[in-house]
Amino acid sequence: MSIGQYSYEEYLSVVRSFHGYTAPGLAAGGFMVDLALSRMPDGVLFEAVCETRNCLPDAVQLLTPCTVGNGRLKIINLGRFALSLYDKHSGEGVRVYVDAQKVRAWPEVEAWLFKLKPKREQDCQLLLEQIRQAGPELYGIETVLVQPQLLGKRRRGAIGCCNLCGEPYPIDDGAICRACAGKTPYLVPGAEHFERPFDGPALDAAPLRDTVGKTALHDMTMIVPGKSKGAAFVNRVMKKGSLLEETPENC
Amino acid sequence: MSIGQYSYEEYLSVVRSFHGYTAPGLAAGGFMVDLALSRMPDGVLFEAVCETRNCLPDAVQLLTPCTVGNGRLKIINLGRFALSLYDKHSGEGVRVYVDAQKVRAWPEVEAWLFKLKPKREQDCQLLLEQIRQAGPELYGIETVLVQPQLLGKRRRGAIGCCNLCGEPYPIDDGAICRACAGKTPYLVPGAEHFERPFDGPALDAAPLRDTVGKTALHDMTMIVPGKSKGAAFVNRVMKKGSLLEETPENC
Repeated sequence: MSIGQYSYEEYLSVVRSFHGYTAPGLAAGGFMVDLALSRMPDGVLFEAVCETRNCLPDAVQLLTPCTVGNGRLKIINLGRFALSLYDKHSGEGVRVYVDAQKVRAWPEVEAWLFKLKPKREQDCQLLLEQIRQAGPELYGIETVLVQPQLLGKRRRGAIGCCNLCGEPYPIDDGAICRACAGKTPYLVPGAEHFERPFDGPALDAAPLRDTVGKTALHDMTMIVPGKSKGAAFVNRVMKKGSLLEETPENC
Repeated sequence: MSIGQYSYEEYLSVVRSFHGYTAPGLAAGGFMVDLALSRMPDGVLFEAVCETRNCLPDAVQLLTPCTVGNGRLKIINLGRFALSLYDKHSGEGVRVYVDAQKVRAWPEVEAWLFKLKPKREQDCQLLLEQIRQAGPELYGIETVLVQPQLLGKRRRGAIGCCNLCGEPYPIDDGAICRACAGKTPYLVPGAEHFERPFDGPALDAAPLRDTVGKTALHDMTMIVPGKSKGAAFVNRVMKKGSLLEETPENC
């Protein structure tokens, strides 16, 4: 029983060092990648798709030349424990998936996969042993043809500096980078106790020049110092020059 | 000049074996991860965010315990060459980014980062040498607080078998899995010459029970054998039982 260039035990040791522990998903993943590799013709430059973010991407990264960082492994989260290797140019390839019927013959694997008992009641050693004993028998394999729009290298276009944060970013993203346009995963300095007030849709900030034809989400207040203060733009559809032309010079 | 437990040369050799070649992004990434690690307090259980899919995720995976498959590395594509390491529980951490100003002092690095010359005119050795010589000097570092909704483990809920493909999937996704609901990256067998007819919005198939209140995209044709054939549901808003109740028994 071997996985790629490794014995099963050697593979588990490589898994421990990269993934942190011998996750059952990586044990199964090892056999799955091995199966897929065995069906790929020699000399084909291939790429990979993982249909889950859990565990499986690490098996692909350990056993094939495809990594997330070199762009040859794509993770398309479909929630299925499955992966494909495919010819980078033609899209022809093989898909290996967990076969729900075959798993029934291995109770500890079935209990793990379908979450039939709480994690603390799982017998981890027995689970790894059943995955090893079953070897390639738990999985199905089929040929696939990857959609043409997923083939080929993604191009990022020109790089400039963001007008707000000043960092290099792909100028195709707009006048400011995606982080400054509201996609930041960080709390904004000075607003560090901010929490989402409700579970509503995520909203994006947009550079002024991209708002033409859209409705402003908030009213905007115009303050003319010493003279007036009030809602100037209410439920306003943005037009070219809206804010500049219609605002008194001293605002 | 060292990167983590490695000398610069050793690190490049590990990069070659994992990533396939000594990409400049991984050379820079090595220094960036090293910088971030040096600012993390000892004993903190941390996770990572990469703000780009290019190269940097592999530096994180090689030099920290965070991988895509173990869920401790998240890739949030903001188009910036930057990463953060942060306390898994509190969200407090450090962010390391390429400092556009500092890069100006290193012409080959600047030309690479801002794509100032075609790839074939890059001097790859000089580029790697400048990245090595500059060491940590090319980067900025700042403290960050990661948004609370990104902290904590994602839970997948119960697992069932998809009513269409029969594979295990998270039943929270609906009556059928995401792949069967139209997210598949593969061409459908029997329709292998299918290509997207236009660059319009991506459309999803939906299980019948989830369509109540929605408008059907296509008219539907009713055929009563030997009697009639015609558009039965035109621009139709779906109601509970629509298709079953209003269709003659022999359809």
